[in-house]
Amino acid sequence: MKPIFRQNQLFTFMLYCNGQGLEKNILDCGAGGMLPPLALFKEHGYETTGIDISDKAIEHANKFQSEHSIKLNITKGDMKELSFEDNSFNFCYSYNTIFHMSKEDVKKSLEEMKRVLVPGGLMFVNFVSTSDERCGIGEEVRPGEYYEMEHGEKVLHSYFDENEGDELFRQLGLKRIYKEVRKRIGPKLGGGFVTLGYIDYIVEKSL
Amino acid sequence: MKPIFRQNQLFTFMLYCNGQGLEKNILDCGAGGMLPPLALFKEHGYETTGIDISDKAIEHANKFQSEHSIKLNITKGDMKELSFEDNSFNFCYSYNTIFHMSKEDVKKSLEEMKRVLVPGGLMFVNFVSTSDERCGIGEEVRPGEYYEMEHGEKVLHSYFDENEGDELFRQLGLKRIYKEVRKRIGPKLGGGFVTLGYIDYIVEKSL
Repeated sequence: MKPIFRQNQLFTFMLYCNGQGLEKNILDCGAGGMLPPLALFKEHGYETTGIDISDKAIEHANKFQSEHSIKLNITKGDMKELSFEDNSFNFCYSYNTIFHMSKEDVKKSLEEMKRVLVPGGLMFVNFVSTSDERCGIGEEVRPGEYYEMEHGEKVLHSYFDENEGDELFRQLGLKRIYKEVRKRIGPKLGGGFVTLGYIDYIVEKSL
Repeated sequence: MKPIFRQNQLFTFMLYCNGQGLEKNILDCGAGGMLPPLALFKEHGYETTGIDISDKAIEHANKFQSEHSIKLNITKGDMKELSFEDNSFNFCYSYNTIFHMSKEDVKKSLEEMKRVLVPGGLMFVNFVSTSDERCGIGEEVRPGEYYEMEHGEKVLHSYFDENEGDELFRQLGLKRIYKEVRKRIGPKLGGGFVTLGYIDYIVEKSL
């Protein structure tokens, strides 16, 4: 059965990428998991590269690749220190990943993604927002950064307010070309509803 | 070349539909246009039916169907008076369509969509929201309803505030199971940025 991608926002990103008129090669930072979004780019003619820091996530992605007979080129790596040369990719993204870090590490990772991107290249990143109902629960480590329990483990989450990303990209010299602020209200495991907040960005590395 | 669907939210809807365990048949109200979203459902094994009030939109959809050698079963029709029996479809949706009507007609259309849906069936609908920058421009006909110029024609738009849809569905006896409030900031034709606001709903007709 054909998989249904849950990472909707990456379709929007692909439309912007296709519009840049550059060769189709793309890097995913946080590329692992059971439904690796790189498969979507592969299906649309992209040469794909991915890294993930989690062995488990890479295993899941390997299983997907063998089940669907595709090669996505996903290896172990840390997005805070990418092992690629400057200007290696025309496009890169990090989906539902970067908010599992401190804000300092978020900035470091975005600097790395910028470094490996060609001038004129595009980047997609999404943040969890302060309008997410999980924001403020748990132990506050630094402003907007909380330790929360997830599957019995203590996990760090960084929440961004509606304009914090804009300021961050301005500091990094990346030009914002698209932004979506989203609030999702959906069923919660075990009953009731949960409100999740996200902010998606597409930014360009200037020529 | 494989088309890229722009109607991201319908992937989310499809995930919910697949989870209902019902036979895959679906109705699109406002099904025409250059990239008919029914093609996406067809690709995932759905039996498709669509109606559109615009001859031009149906022509575009016909062109797409012959170019991609698929049959989506789209005919001319008015969503305020659907020509289908009660309980005809397990799923139905109307994407980027319903806000081109008065609020009274929106309600009438939703009643019709509910009528043709089976108990236990799901419906997706999206509204433009009052946080859209176009809201309030143009001649106000009734509260939240404005005439705006679009391609040289006077067009009606109905804007919904964040909770207006919830109240409407409550009145119609449809159970909300998912909602996304979105604000998109993207490039504007001719330069600068435009802010668009949407509210997406997935609701269920009770058993």
